[in-house]
Amino acid sequence: MNIKAIFYNIGNLLKVEAGLLTLPLIVSFIYHDGNYFAFLIPIFLLLTIGFLVTAKRKPDQKIYAKEGFVIVGLSWIIMSLFGALPFYISREIPSFINAFFETASGFTTTGATILTDIEALSYSLLFWRGFTHWIGGMGILVFVLAFMPNTKAHSIYIMKAESSGPQVGKIVSKVKITAQILYFIYIALTIIEIIFLLFKMPLYDSVTHAFATAGTGGFSIKNASIAYYDSVYIETVITVFMFLFGINFTVFYLILIGNVKQAIKSEEFRWYFIIAIVAITLVTINCYSMYGSFGRTLRYSSFQVISVMTCTGFSTFNFNIWPMFSKTLLIILMMIGACAGSTGGGLKISRVIIYIKMIVKEIKYSIHPRQMTAVTFDKKPVDESILKGISHFLIAYISILLIGMLILSLDGYSFTTNFTAVVTCFSNCGPGLDAVGPVENYSSFSVLSKLVLTFVMLAGRLEIFPMLILFTPRMWKYR
Amino acid sequence: MNIKAIFYNIGNLLKVEAGLLTLPLIVSFIYHDGNYFAFLIPIFLLLTIGFLVTAKRKPDQKIYAKEGFVIVGLSWIIMSLFGALPFYISREIPSFINAFFETASGFTTTGATILTDIEALSYSLLFWRGFTHWIGGMGILVFVLAFMPNTKAHSIYIMKAESSGPQVGKIVSKVKITAQILYFIYIALTIIEIIFLLFKMPLYDSVTHAFATAGTGGFSIKNASIAYYDSVYIETVITVFMFLFGINFTVFYLILIGNVKQAIKSEEFRWYFIIAIVAITLVTINCYSMYGSFGRTLRYSSFQVISVMTCTGFSTFNFNIWPMFSKTLLIILMMIGACAGSTGGGLKISRVIIYIKMIVKEIKYSIHPRQMTAVTFDKKPVDESILKGISHFLIAYISILLIGMLILSLDGYSFTTNFTAVVTCFSNCGPGLDAVGPVENYSSFSVLSKLVLTFVMLAGRLEIFPMLILFTPRMWKYR
Repeated sequence: MNIKAIFYNIGNLLKVEAGLLTLPLIVSFIYHDGNYFAFLIPIFLLLTIGFLVTAKRKPDQKIYAKEGFVIVGLSWIIMSLFGALPFYISREIPSFINAFFETASGFTTTGATILTDIEALSYSLLFWRGFTHWIGGMGILVFVLAFMPNTKAHSIYIMKAESSGPQVGKIVSKVKITAQILYFIYIALTIIEIIFLLFKMPLYDSVTHAFATAGTGGFSIKNASIAYYDSVYIETVITVFMFLFGINFTVFYLILIGNVKQAIKSEEFRWYFIIAIVAITLVTINCYSMYGSFGRTLRYSSFQVISVMTCTGFSTFNFNIWPMFSKTLLIILMMIGACAGSTGGGLKISRVIIYIKMIVKEIKYSIHPRQMTAVTFDKKPVDESILKGISHFLIAYISILLIGMLILSLDGYSFTTNFTAVVTCFSNCGPGLDAVGPVENYSSFSVLSKLVLTFVMLAGRLEIFPMLILFTPRMWKYR
Repeated sequence: MNIKAIFYNIGNLLKVEAGLLTLPLIVSFIYHDGNYFAFLIPIFLLLTIGFLVTAKRKPDQKIYAKEGFVIVGLSWIIMSLFGALPFYISREIPSFINAFFETASGFTTTGATILTDIEALSYSLLFWRGFTHWIGGMGILVFVLAFMPNTKAHSIYIMKAESSGPQVGKIVSKVKITAQILYFIYIALTIIEIIFLLFKMPLYDSVTHAFATAGTGGFSIKNASIAYYDSVYIETVITVFMFLFGINFTVFYLILIGNVKQAIKSEEFRWYFIIAIVAITLVTINCYSMYGSFGRTLRYSSFQVISVMTCTGFSTFNFNIWPMFSKTLLIILMMIGACAGSTGGGLKISRVIIYIKMIVKEIKYSIHPRQMTAVTFDKKPVDESILKGISHFLIAYISILLIGMLILSLDGYSFTTNFTAVVTCFSNCGPGLDAVGPVENYSSFSVLSKLVLTFVMLAGRLEIFPMLILFTPRMWKYR
């Protein structure tokens, strides 16, 4: 294990986080909200530690998959710990565990909050809260790869560990260029959303909500979330952008280079579209009697379905009071999630497609044992090692879900609460059902439960294995 | 596809079912409960159809895996349809769908009931209800293999499709002898339990409860289940026998032939034992404050843990009012289930062990990519095809669980009810939480939900693929 390279990479990350914290500091100056030290202290700490760690001669940067996992896993925990400081120092979130939970929820783009009154927070902290979504959406280490000098060829392992989906690939042959293309698309889409939102929202609201949409995070600056604005225009813009940010970014790249044909052919994208349409239709039919008007039902159902299936978690209606069928469907959509290689969460549609194909293949094989068929995706056969990987992913997911539920159950909440809390945190969505419904919050969970849910959020965002490996004692025995 | 062999095998099964129905007919004569025709009509029907189907010249008996799946899948559905007739004809269960649900629940050893007043049933029907558990526990087709003449070598496929666990093997080289050994152990253990129960129960109660224990079914003849007797002796006997029937029968065979050493070495058996002890301890600690006495808590917790983990489903206390931790633990135990090759249900402990080992292997591999390690079970490496099979099993299980929950949600019951109803039916346990708790029943579900749950029970008992294959249109296209 190349411990030095791990330290060096994390040191770099700390410096970047210090840089990112200057943005909310500027916001604090603009609004004169007096939170200067809440940002200056962590910036000072991050820079000091960052430079101390990276001060020595640059180590051998040769790293492999395991170092990639460890760098990513550790980075996200450390980043959340330091990112929690502004909330804690300002005393706007007086409990450190709550501040840590909120920050991890931000970076992982979960959007689960411990705040009972969001609007009580100052401008700069609400900005930072939304900004964590934007940083976490595409990945801070991908950001480092894209914009910091001296990133080595082996950094593919870091990118693989931080990106989502069963088959993480480079868009172009160089990792650095790939990272830059991803961030270019990400920044461009975010700016376009801000512009659209500006027609009906103040600049501050537009920026923070665009951050939360881009990362498919879901932190709003209003207690009532998007329902506060009660505007069909805003809901439509956000729905469209949530959907866009749930698409595999390779699709946008293909469109950018003029290869629209291949972009539309993407199997995952097609299913993403079909699932969205079918789910909206089903929820609209199921909820029609609640609203009595087709237009109103469609308005709420389409927003909520897209919000949940992209794992953003914004809400315009307390879906906890919807009929059970719609609620169950939302939970299933949340588990499935959005496309791989997007900022959305969940198991990812490509994984689910492959799961279904594996079952179909098993059935076909039982019927015709001599006809060997391979599982294909986008018309190419999927490698056996990837099939194994995604099978293991499901096993690990179910294990985390059950163990998580069991620990949460010590708090005495309902079975539904515990189940949906773990699912929504794993999918990086935010709201669940019952006591974690869209109008509730996570403040009253015990410290243990909050730590478990934070672990689950990180495991969900980093696709489990970086977190599991980090907590394997064996990992730290050998060098 | 060898359609003729399928018909021939099912024809034989119908004749056997007619034979089995003579037992409750005799009970009806003994107790003069007037249900003669309720049994005579189905017996007549079964014999007529059975002989008509098998009357022709015996067909080519060459069958393979797919015919094995189809024979088993179809047999269990047809067997449940005919088995429902006594309840329906006697008008003691006036709705046919309810009678079908009850019978399928019996044969699959689930023990989920639609009856609101069990004790209102006549002696012969309660006997038949318990007897279905006993028949289904070891498998009716295994019974046919053991005791009917002219069973061919290819019948291993039937046995594989009807038996439980990831690696179904023959105890001895001949399938027929293996089936006979299994039934010998099964009958012997049942008789021993009857004898033990006779000390504190009437003969009728002893026999029916021994049937329900042997099949790990859970149908009691009392509304209050085992709580009715309020006897520590009876609870202890039933706890011990539930535990015994949850052990892989190969272990008993090894003990019978004097190979106790190898029997105790069984990895699955050891984990089964450890899980039971740990779970009882945790539930006892968690529920202590409810009962205030260590002895009383241990009495209820040990009975309930063993009942649920073997997927029997007997109850001595309404565990729906236990603390959430204990309830969640029970649901997880129910999902895990008992040992492969036992009459118990669930995913089976051996599968769960292999799942965990697969994850451990994946982590080890990430840390040391050059150290190739195989997943081992009972110190032997597990074949890759078996690993794939059990991965696919989990995918299919989760799919059935989610789709089942979604359909059930149309009835408007709670999320917890729907989730635990599907889990408990899949695991062939019986009780779940909320509206399907131990003191509730399944009568108020819609016809659609009852059909879905029946499918789930059969999928659980036959380990999914026979049922999935049966409902694959492709299956029926080719010959």
